[in-house]
Amino acid sequence: MNGFGQTVTLSIFGESHGPAIGIVLDGLPAGEPIDEAELQRQMARRAPGASPLATSRKEPDAAEILSGFFNGKTTGAPVCAMIRNTNTRSGDYTPTLPRPGHADLTAFLKYGGHADYRGGGHFSGRLTAPLVFAGGVCRQILERRGIVIGAHIQAIHNVWDDRFQSPTAEQLHHLTHMDFPLLCGARREAMEKEILTAKQDGDSVGGVIECAAVGVPAGLGSPFFGGMESRIAAMLYAIPAVKGVEFGAGFAMAGLYGSEANDPIRAGKTGYYTETNQNGGVNGGIANGMPIVVRAGIKPTPSIAKPQKTVDLATGENAEVETAGRHDPCIVPRAVPVAEAGLAVCLLDALLSG
Amino acid sequence: MNGFGQTVTLSIFGESHGPAIGIVLDGLPAGEPIDEAELQRQMARRAPGASPLATSRKEPDAAEILSGFFNGKTTGAPVCAMIRNTNTRSGDYTPTLPRPGHADLTAFLKYGGHADYRGGGHFSGRLTAPLVFAGGVCRQILERRGIVIGAHIQAIHNVWDDRFQSPTAEQLHHLTHMDFPLLCGARREAMEKEILTAKQDGDSVGGVIECAAVGVPAGLGSPFFGGMESRIAAMLYAIPAVKGVEFGAGFAMAGLYGSEANDPIRAGKTGYYTETNQNGGVNGGIANGMPIVVRAGIKPTPSIAKPQKTVDLATGENAEVETAGRHDPCIVPRAVPVAEAGLAVCLLDALLSG
Amino acid sequence: MNGFGQTVTLSIFGESHGPAIGIVLDGLPAGEPIDEAELQRQMARRAPGASPLATSRKEPDAAEILSGFFNGKTTGAPVCAMIRNTNTRSGDYTPTLPRPGHADLTAFLKYGGHADYRGGGHFSGRLTAPLVFAGGVCRQILERRGIVIGAHIQAIHNVWDDRFQSPTAEQLHHLTHMDFPLLCGARREAMEKEILTAKQDGDSVGGVIECAAVGVPAGLGSPFFGGMESRIAAMLYAIPAVKGVEFGAGFAMAGLYGSEANDPIRAGKTGYYTETNQNGGVNGGIANGMPIVVRAGIKPTPSIAKPQKTVDLATGENAEVETAGRHDPCIVPRAVPVAEAGLAVCLLDALLSG
Amino acid sequence: MNGFGQTVTLSIFGESHGPAIGIVLDGLPAGEPIDEAELQRQMARRAPGASPLATSRKEPDAAEILSGFFNGKTTGAPVCAMIRNTNTRSGDYTPTLPRPGHADLTAFLKYGGHADYRGGGHFSGRLTAPLVFAGGVCRQILERRGIVIGAHIQAIHNVWDDRFQSPTAEQLHHLTHMDFPLLCGARREAMEKEILTAKQDGDSVGGVIECAAVGVPAGLGSPFFGGMESRIAAMLYAIPAVKGVEFGAGFAMAGLYGSEANDPIRAGKTGYYTETNQNGGVNGGIANGMPIVVRAGIKPTPSIAKPQKTVDLATGENAEVETAGRHDPCIVPRAVPVAEAGLAVCLLDALLSG
Repeated sequence: MNGFGQTVTLSIFGESHGPAIGIVLDGLPAGEPIDEAELQRQMARRAPGASPLATSRKEPDAAEILSGFFNGKTTGAPVCAMIRNTNTRSGDYTPTLPRPGHADLTAFLKYGGHADYRGGGHFSGRLTAPLVFAGGVCRQILERRGIVIGAHIQAIHNVWDDRFQSPTAEQLHHLTHMDFPLLCGARREAMEKEILTAKQDGDSVGGVIECAAVGVPAGLGSPFFGGMESRIAAMLYAIPAVKGVEFGAGFAMAGLYGSEANDPIRAGKTGYYTETNQNGGVNGGIANGMPIVVRAGIKPTPSIAKPQKTVDLATGENAEVETAGRHDPCIVPRAVPVAEAGLAVCLLDALLSG
Repeated sequence: MNGFGQTVTLSIFGESHGPAIGIVLDGLPAGEPIDEAELQRQMARRAPGASPLATSRKEPDAAEILSGFFNGKTTGAPVCAMIRNTNTRSGDYTPTLPRPGHADLTAFLKYGGHADYRGGGHFSGRLTAPLVFAGGVCRQILERRGIVIGAHIQAIHNVWDDRFQSPTAEQLHHLTHMDFPLLCGARREAMEKEILTAKQDGDSVGGVIECAAVGVPAGLGSPFFGGMESRIAAMLYAIPAVKGVEFGAGFAMAGLYGSEANDPIRAGKTGYYTETNQNGGVNGGIANGMPIVVRAGIKPTPSIAKPQKTVDLATGENAEVETAGRHDPCIVPRAVPVAEAGLAVCLLDALLSG
Repeated sequence: MNGFGQTVTLSIFGESHGPAIGIVLDGLPAGEPIDEAELQRQMARRAPGASPLATSRKEPDAAEILSGFFNGKTTGAPVCAMIRNTNTRSGDYTPTLPRPGHADLTAFLKYGGHADYRGGGHFSGRLTAPLVFAGGVCRQILERRGIVIGAHIQAIHNVWDDRFQSPTAEQLHHLTHMDFPLLCGARREAMEKEILTAKQDGDSVGGVIECAAVGVPAGLGSPFFGGMESRIAAMLYAIPAVKGVEFGAGFAMAGLYGSEANDPIRAGKTGYYTETNQNGGVNGGIANGMPIVVRAGIKPTPSIAKPQKTVDLATGENAEVETAGRHDPCIVPRAVPVAEAGLAVCLLDALLSG
Repeated sequence: MNGFGQTVTLSIFGESHGPAIGIVLDGLPAGEPIDEAELQRQMARRAPGASPLATSRKEPDAAEILSGFFNGKTTGAPVCAMIRNTNTRSGDYTPTLPRPGHADLTAFLKYGGHADYRGGGHFSGRLTAPLVFAGGVCRQILERRGIVIGAHIQAIHNVWDDRFQSPTAEQLHHLTHMDFPLLCGARREAMEKEILTAKQDGDSVGGVIECAAVGVPAGLGSPFFGGMESRIAAMLYAIPAVKGVEFGAGFAMAGLYGSEANDPIRAGKTGYYTETNQNGGVNGGIANGMPIVVRAGIKPTPSIAKPQKTVDLATGENAEVETAGRHDPCIVPRAVPVAEAGLAVCLLDALLSG
């Protein structure tokens, strides 16, 4: 079970150090022009760059579109995009020593030792590149329908950005053009310091990403298992390192009274709206027309340089591992476009599913 | 899209004030004995009882099994259970005044005014009764395979219980027999006081539920969209009032270093284990054999007695609503068996999906 | 895996001699008025009647709608319909002697002896009653969109009716009001004679049903596994006793030249059409706007009064079985509304899936 | 909706004249060795060859495995295979003149003129190459579990081969190594003559393929929509040009008495079996352990050299089309491995779905 979606469906394939990674994106409307430069820009947001904050592994992440695209537009047939793996250093990984916090051990146990362990194989964070491709296609289609998605870094380690108040299309659009997207830019220095300190220690840090979508028409989603929150959470939890997902006030709801948590409904010129958005744009699984606001808690990158306790899968004995490879001391900045992409796929799928 | 599951599938139906609610539960193994008394006990845990903490609506919630059950065992064919609605007071609801925080408005907008609005209709919390039935069946099957599920109230308003440290089958089993399940029973008085205070004010409070499952074999789940976290989160978000879901350290991961978040792997007598469980039993979407620990943030019951701002759907004008019906001032205690049930369905589905 | 459908989904439950049978029909548009008398008329077409051609088991087949229906219209929430089993004679069945040609043996082997064997259990032809209910709802919705479905008995044993030439809405509508629907009524006597002869011999006969749908908009369906033929065939093969499904010229295509099989395309006043309809309204899985024409080959009722070779499942030894129960000597006339119902569900699902 | 499968899933992509075609095959067990030479042999069976009976378009159909394969074995992660399109002559196709009998017109209508029309685009028979790849992988896995699949040409135009009587693994294996598989080799000359005559006339002919699988364990499949016949029919109808699918006696059931159609059940040394196999190995959707026998009726290749009536999509006027490209005068021989491949995928999916 690797697929996602009701109308717009995804099928992700590939391993970190195999020939290629990619995605099949099906169910798109036909005749949608796709701006390939903008698509590539989205891909570049996720790609490891020149920043000292990220891994030094350089990959162009150039996606080749193999199908479903003709004369600059979608054809209605499945879109397959493939990204060749070019810059792989398999020697960095010791197959028999699973890295704590990563999927090495679970992949080994699930697949009876047959998993491609190199660089995390199918479980590598690199597999989020195809998801960014898919999201990049979907968000162009969504934008033509007035739906805009954006996100910011809400926390890195213990440094917090503000929360979204009333996000607008302009604000979200602006955030997607920032290389370190924050609502309050003054927090950047402290956040970067957290990352660099961790890096110097051979360690890593986690954080929180807050995403929003505006222009979402009321009525999207289905009751119960097809609710917007169920769909979006399932998508976000497919992104490696996500360990928490909350909507609107989220866990803070626990400390509220109903009279605080209930968003007062008002009649506006273009329809009903709520004065607050504690519910993050969703009631009973159905979008209510307010901005959808969702946060993802991201754990620290599991790959760290410090020696860690593990086992030797060849001998079954206790052992120690140091991960010598090129790794991000903090995955949060690069995960921002991934979370946005996931949200884009969910919204287009729900929109087209009626 | 109302269905759930890959191998074990659910289809929920019904409205709060219609003839009946129920569920079709398919994909169960054949030949599984089902203890109907235990099933009824699970149903009773969710049913509104004599407690002043809950709604005064009394319904026996007696499920009639219509199919898939023969000579005390599952047959392999779909199990349908139906619960008649008997104690309905539709007059309590004013159809044209949507209750803030509830799905009244979104249901109205999605279905063009055709939704059965009585008592929240299909979006009523009452629809969780069939889910408890399904979970009750699944957990009996799971227990014969060594998997035990339990949960406790972790917070009500601002009163917090402890977190699970190393949950055991005995501990979880014990919790499922408590009417107000807590790890630290001394918190009960303060929690109940929060609920009663809110009730006296015509208000309501939220909270947090923490669930755990032990005995889950390593290897359950699939990469990406079929990961255990994606499956469980999609299920829990189908429960009305859930606004946050996190696994293991969850959002607290944001403040950790990798060296704290990575669970050290060790070789034990019966297999590998981790010294800590910051990842809540899941890595890369795959169960690692440690207890699965998941928390759900629950918002305050939207139905409160205080006057609230809303709109009149008949006129499109601003209006005010007071909800006079019988409502829970805090849904958290009754939601505990619901969350457990959802987790049970997810685990059996993953177990049988290989 | 008991479900069907992409947008409009079905979940069938029940056993022939259990408490009830029924169906959950989800994904319907909201606000669709349903004429319950017409629905009941469709159910009655399938129900065993007073005719000497059918089983003498009398069941009113009165469906109780449990959900999804309010003020005479669909609400958008799942519709569950339940039919109580009232007239059961379990003594007619010997559990340990599987009837040849029926699913008794396969159910026993699949479910390890735990299947409800009474009257065929979940595999009974009686389970088609819920499907007729679902189809009855769908066809009312389809008719408001100009899509009309009908069918006729094309063969019983070796007596053949004509084939559809250019079916019209009027013709199809008319057929659904005939108790023994034929294009050429003169064949009825010979067909009835075949059935009665078989009955007198304690035997049974098979036949062919030809269904058509007119008004189907061009473009319905998806490439490959979501093609109209794949969807419709999967549905028709879910009807017990169907052993062949063909579209348009079907197997007769084998004997044609391309110049005969290719339907010439012409420009008409209201769109393109084809001069012939050898392809039965579908090209490449996509509806082409011409009538969809599909035939189902139906095997003789497996339950016959003659002694047959079987095994005794209790002893594992060879044995003999005579089926003493009340059975149809020919299922074909009662299967006509079932096949129509299946086609209706497929078409509404494809229509709403875009 | 382009996907197939419950546990083993397929996602096909590509267009005849685009960059590449391919497939994602997910849900395979890990650790299965795949003989790539045998896989390539299966691909070669479908590829257009040197025979004057087939198209002169030469393509090596070399599949590159991009993922899911490591050290000669499956890893458990999705397998993606890609086939580059190299020998394309787009000039052969006039985009505005849809070829009768092909999907040109329906693709145009469905996708609003945005389909990639070159060479049939996504609807091209060339898209069956990835399916043969997938089937080639699945059948190797099946064979290690004792399940063998084979097929023969049962008819070309009006020349008929025998039907399977009691197919054996050896017989089926032998058939897969014949370039023109027949049970009665003496029919080959007459069949080839039919094809060549049609070719000389600028015409084409259809036929019938009969597939069988032996070693299928009793119990595979699910009731209703998950029945083996529903699954297999949905798969076979995804193969372009299939217009009929029947199991066992199929449509000939119409002319049988129940006493002829019911397969007598007997106790054998290794389990129960039936003396005849009129039901083609399936009862009530569940495999009964006898050989599964299924026939597919194939229409004549729509692309013929003769002038045909069509419309000009640019002007909306009537027009005429002659298809000058390189086409098969009869697709049946090349469709044999495609049908086998489809059956293999269905069987492995059902086997792993329990």
